Amino acid sequence: MQSREQPGWSPEPVAPGPDLHDVPMSWFNIVPNLPAPLPPARDPEDAKGSRLEVQQRIRLDAMRAQDAATDSFLPIPERVRQELAGLGRPTPLLRARALEEYLDTPARIYLKREDVLPTGSFKLNSAVTQAYFAAQQGVGTLVTETGAGQWGHAVAWAARRFGLHAIVFWAGVSARQKPGRHTVIEMLGAQVHQSPSELTAPGKALLRDGRHVLGSLGTAIGEAISYAADHPETRYISGSNLPHVLAHQTVIGQEVKTQLDALGETPDTLIACVGGGSNLGGLMGPFLADKAERGDGLLLLGAESAAAPRLTRGEWRYDHADPEGVTPLTKSYTLGRDYELPDTHVGGLRQHSGSSVVGVLRQQGLLDAVAYEEGEAFDTGRLVLRTEGMLIAPESCHAVRAAIEQAVRARETGAAKTIVACVSGNGALDLDGYTARFGGRAAHA
Amino acid sequence: MQSREQPGWSPEPVAPGPDLHDVPMSWFNIVPNLPAPLPPARDPEDAKGSRLEVQQRIRLDAMRAQDAATDSFLPIPERVRQELAGLGRPTPLLRARALEEYLDTPARIYLKREDVLPTGSFKLNSAVTQAYFAAQQGVGTLVTETGAGQWGHAVAWAARRFGLHAIVFWAGVSARQKPGRHTVIEMLGAQVHQSPSELTAPGKALLRDGRHVLGSLGTAIGEAISYAADHPETRYISGSNLPHVLAHQTVIGQEVKTQLDALGETPDTLIACVGGGSNLGGLMGPFLADKAERGDGLLLLGAESAAAPRLTRGEWRYDHADPEGVTPLTKSYTLGRDYELPDTHVGGLRQHSGSSVVGVLRQQGLLDAVAYEEGEAFDTGRLVLRTEGMLIAPESCHAVRAAIEQAVRARETGAAKTIVACVSGNGALDLDGYTARFGGRAAHA
Repeated sequence: MQSREQPGWSPEPVAPGPDLHDVPMSWFNIVPNLPAPLPPARDPEDAKGSRLEVQQRIRLDAMRAQDAATDSFLPIPERVRQELAGLGRPTPLLRARALEEYLDTPARIYLKREDVLPTGSFKLNSAVTQAYFAAQQGVGTLVTETGAGQWGHAVAWAARRFGLHAIVFWAGVSARQKPGRHTVIEMLGAQVHQSPSELTAPGKALLRDGRHVLGSLGTAIGEAISYAADHPETRYISGSNLPHVLAHQTVIGQEVKTQLDALGETPDTLIACVGGGSNLGGLMGPFLADKAERGDGLLLLGAESAAAPRLTRGEWRYDHADPEGVTPLTKSYTLGRDYELPDTHVGGLRQHSGSSVVGVLRQQGLLDAVAYEEGEAFDTGRLVLRTEGMLIAPESCHAVRAAIEQAVRARETGAAKTIVACVSGNGALDLDGYTARFGGRAAHA
Repeated sequence: MQSREQPGWSPEPVAPGPDLHDVPMSWFNIVPNLPAPLPPARDPEDAKGSRLEVQQRIRLDAMRAQDAATDSFLPIPERVRQELAGLGRPTPLLRARALEEYLDTPARIYLKREDVLPTGSFKLNSAVTQAYFAAQQGVGTLVTETGAGQWGHAVAWAARRFGLHAIVFWAGVSARQKPGRHTVIEMLGAQVHQSPSELTAPGKALLRDGRHVLGSLGTAIGEAISYAADHPETRYISGSNLPHVLAHQTVIGQEVKTQLDALGETPDTLIACVGGGSNLGGLMGPFLADKAERGDGLLLLGAESAAAPRLTRGEWRYDHADPEGVTPLTKSYTLGRDYELPDTHVGGLRQHSGSSVVGVLRQQGLLDAVAYEEGEAFDTGRLVLRTEGMLIAPESCHAVRAAIEQAVRARETGAAKTIVACVSGNGALDLDGYTARFGGRAAHA
């Protein structure tokens, strides 16, 4: 094929640009709008050196600045708005009529379709943003971790889009479940390592001691940070948990607000699955003022995995986000860093701790939470497939499960509730989990 | 989950319906607008009985009526328009700016995104239509064949949507390549049989003689027809080749026309991949009047597989669409029904013959054609992934490959051509083919 090399990042917008009319002008910054101060990250009292200093060194300048910002709105650079439009934003808000019909409910169920983004998940919103800032800073290589693989996939694409190299530590159990997603990430040119690996000190320690050998988001976080710290020419980026990531995802909630307004709808319930919390923060952040005003009139509901029930059964305390203590201590709902997460297909929710921002929402009583077993999630996925036709990610199934329970309750009370659930991702590259549950006997269940 | 049984088809529209404003009112009927009469199907001169009579018996009434219709526009029933809107029609027309940038071309490349439909391909447009008419006729079970699996997947969903049962004969080689798609079709409750199978006389004959043992769309067609003929309570439906299927797909071309008009664009080139021809007919049918007016000013281009090069190397003559001669004789470009199709991952284009409608367009000089090797198609898929971010079906890669060649030519001549290619389907459930080409070494290519 006669064509020139993949171009690197260019400060010039791609001309002529797509229509930006419907793309938000700013990110919503949740932190200054929380009902209580965000507990700051801090160093543990041990002799292993300052984790906070490491974070300062390995993070992108713009991301540190955004985490420290006190403005309620952070302007989105024009080039990032163009990228978001080019990805197909705003994403559709689907009225799930067939699902409503099946449930025989007076409730109206809306699904925010982040699964239609090109790499198949909402993660792309923050990945293109961080890749843009990395290119602007002159960084050549991004190091990150991924749980289910959706963030790694998004980073692999965004890095290529901006002419950068990407190195991804992937929770081993998820990586092994998903050869297809592995192929795609490699086709994009990223380097993938299953975590725990022999490439880093924390990975080696876990393998040596036989702890967390399945891997998890936590083991991958620890390794990615350690790798970035050992390779000063790289920068480390995160796909969840932190204020700037949640801010990047607020394009979701802002769009939902506009889309509901255009339909003359006021939401009664907003639901997102919750792993690191960026899907939840992204959907709900822009509605925090409504929540403050309406109180119990607006239900904010986080759906988590019963395999990692932080919000429903965890403790609100300081903990490391990785088992080896490479990360600083952050306050969140946690199961404890020694908690051995079971082998499930819900990699995106498979974390022992979570976001401080989400934790404050929960601790202050603004956020309700519910946990589902893996089987309940896949059954929900099959129902969505059978009614609405699309195959959604196992993580997203948790949010839709909660929406269904709310809709069934609405049927019982006769209340015509307006329920919005975020479909964080597509499930076609997570089909192994569905196959494990339904393969060979799917037709007869 | 407390919920009632999946409802069957109801003559009442689902209230309140989605917005139908942008959904076409009619299908465009290509046959009366062809530059030459469509050669009629006929029976062979043998003693095996009339295939035409079998077709009359096993087909849905509405489909036979549509094939015989002489009107240029066939009204789309309100309920079908609601279904199409509910699926997300109109689908986006994406300006592939990143691909253009990569190619450094003055051409504008537009991709019609049929891959975003819930089951991941354009096939759903005809599947919901035929399931609707089957339900209206009181038929309980639909029998069909599928090559790549996209049609079978779409029929499985549409059948469930209208409370029907579906039986799918699937070209064996494709079925074995795609365990994920197999899971999805079974999750939808359809019965799947790999072709050739022991369930039908033509399947048994092929297995006994060791012919076409890999299976193909042709072997599956023969078995589906034979099965339907042996089970009078069922009806047989097709996903391509025939006038009514091409008509159902003209929602694609009609939307493209409206979308280009809104952008102030006039197309110079329209491109579709071509297997049975319904994607091609669906895109190009509504532009036939423009072609008649503009002649060489509008290029219509079919992209086929070099493994089944009917339009570029086949003969324009009568042939059976299946190796055993279960189908009537139809005139099309054919490689001959004894042609043993090689083992490729491009199941949707893996046919020895094709559509009479497409054949007439080709034979009358309105349609150009080009054939690509499987490897060229997958390389194109990787380029689309790397630039635009989405993973497209191997069949669709053929169309985009042709668009890229046209765009490169535009660069050489400096002509700012407007090129439209149809992305017939998503590739996430065809990832095996990509993995076979790139797995394990994708990053280093």
